[in-house]
Amino acid sequence: MSSGRAQLLVSVPDEEYAAQLADLEGVDTLVWDMREPHPRVGEIDLVVRPYLHPVDLAAALDGARSLQVVQIQSAGYEDVLPHVPAGVTLCNAAGVHDASTAELAVGLAIASLRDLPQFVRSQDEHVWQDWSYRRSLADSRVLLLGYGQIGRAIASRLRPFEVSLTAIASRPRPGDDLVGWIHGIEELPDLVGQADVLIVIVPLTPATRRLVDADLLARMPDGALVVNVARGGIVDTDALVAECASGRLQAALDVTDPEPLPPGHPLWSTPGVIITPHVGGATRAMRPRSIDLVRRQVEALRDGRQLANVVS
Amino acid sequence: MSSGRAQLLVSVPDEEYAAQLADLEGVDTLVWDMREPHPRVGEIDLVVRPYLHPVDLAAALDGARSLQVVQIQSAGYEDVLPHVPAGVTLCNAAGVHDASTAELAVGLAIASLRDLPQFVRSQDEHVWQDWSYRRSLADSRVLLLGYGQIGRAIASRLRPFEVSLTAIASRPRPGDDLVGWIHGIEELPDLVGQADVLIVIVPLTPATRRLVDADLLARMPDGALVVNVARGGIVDTDALVAECASGRLQAALDVTDPEPLPPGHPLWSTPGVIITPHVGGATRAMRPRSIDLVRRQVEALRDGRQLANVVS
Repeated sequence: MSSGRAQLLVSVPDEEYAAQLADLEGVDTLVWDMREPHPRVGEIDLVVRPYLHPVDLAAALDGARSLQVVQIQSAGYEDVLPHVPAGVTLCNAAGVHDASTAELAVGLAIASLRDLPQFVRSQDEHVWQDWSYRRSLADSRVLLLGYGQIGRAIASRLRPFEVSLTAIASRPRPGDDLVGWIHGIEELPDLVGQADVLIVIVPLTPATRRLVDADLLARMPDGALVVNVARGGIVDTDALVAECASGRLQAALDVTDPEPLPPGHPLWSTPGVIITPHVGGATRAMRPRSIDLVRRQVEALRDGRQLANVVS
Repeated sequence: MSSGRAQLLVSVPDEEYAAQLADLEGVDTLVWDMREPHPRVGEIDLVVRPYLHPVDLAAALDGARSLQVVQIQSAGYEDVLPHVPAGVTLCNAAGVHDASTAELAVGLAIASLRDLPQFVRSQDEHVWQDWSYRRSLADSRVLLLGYGQIGRAIASRLRPFEVSLTAIASRPRPGDDLVGWIHGIEELPDLVGQADVLIVIVPLTPATRRLVDADLLARMPDGALVVNVARGGIVDTDALVAECASGRLQAALDVTDPEPLPPGHPLWSTPGVIITPHVGGATRAMRPRSIDLVRRQVEALRDGRQLANVVS
């Protein structure tokens, strides 16, 4: 400790995080999964919220008098924000999930277009399907609804697939090395009519809730595919079920509304729908990127520098 | 007809090909699916073999006295070669399937790593799986066994996925903009020990038959994935079944040996194996690329220029 300050106390979700922070001078860690109150909660400066299970943040942080920062491990923070104690900084994990989520978006698009679910079911019946010409990602017109960090990661992965790529963000702006122009959200109703594949990767906000509604879905071309790797609430589930049940559209969803999807919900058995249980970020690629972020945040807090990914 | 030559007669598999060649001067077409003998077979100069069903080439081409060229629509030609009449040029469809096959290779890799088949089966039971950290393509060490046209198409698509990419070809040579160095086949036993994902995309020849055998599979790291989008015969099926049945390796196979895979074959129900029924090339992206190749070949033959993709 060069400055003579008190040690910073950081709570982390498991031993691996603690081990990866062990070499940081001026930093103590404790492992806390936040399921039960922790006797030292009053001393914690920065808390890293666990990723794989829900946490009652307000209850867990009751008595956290020293707390300065809540670091979550997801990019989305709409569920957490109301429960962060007053005066405490909330940081999200923007960047940590880009690779995992972007590769799932591309994988879901290919899986749907190339009928992988049908082949899985045929495999279970030992049936070698007859050939036919299936859809392809190549030559598809892909519309990216959302062009933040993950949207850009999806764009970079899609580019070599011989697709035509269009991106939409909240406000129009000049493009980058991946797309020529970033269209404003007001163009969505027109652009969606030319989209063979719509990939949803906007944050869930009051402005985006049910953005992909019955009217917008009705504008999509016959046979088009909706991929949602953002939040279930951005899409009107009933409207999507109707369009897919009729065979007109397909969907590949890593997120649903409601979520988790309850047994018996019609979305489970709607033809042409693939559902993965919100696993966009939960891969082995996440951990090194998460640990890297947490290290940088802890160092910034210790040294009095600006934190990254501050959302409130 | 500018030169006064006789019209070239080209047989094509369906009306769409005929329509797309209709504007070529000096060229007549007839539609022939090659299932039955054709009364004008003796006049045909170039035959385009159908793609989606098997053809008895020797029987179909009996009496084809004018035949100069057999144009097939697959890249692989090992089954066709013995049946091409003497003196007739065989051209394959190198390039036509690159986009379709490469995107399926990437899609199969992601589907296997991210457990999509498990989610399809869970979906059928209305089960929202618990979260766990799954594998990812990001950070994976990918070994491309084969670096011809499709191998390069796979490499270009994989590059933005944050993988480390190694390529092997029959002979070592300097790399390109996608890989730093192309290793020779003699390095395969060493390199496979560092491969999280092995993608097989070599042609089937006497030298590659059963190249991926029990010994090579045994060298792969625990948890590694074998993706085969080339030919089933390159992999020793029994050895692969054994490695997957034990849970040590996974596989995603668009091609099998035997093929089609018969009901009851153990590969169908081996854990960790995804099977698609040789659909690498059969997409809507194939047709425009195939028609483009056929047009160029017909023009070359008509004008006395060198044909593309001559394999014998």
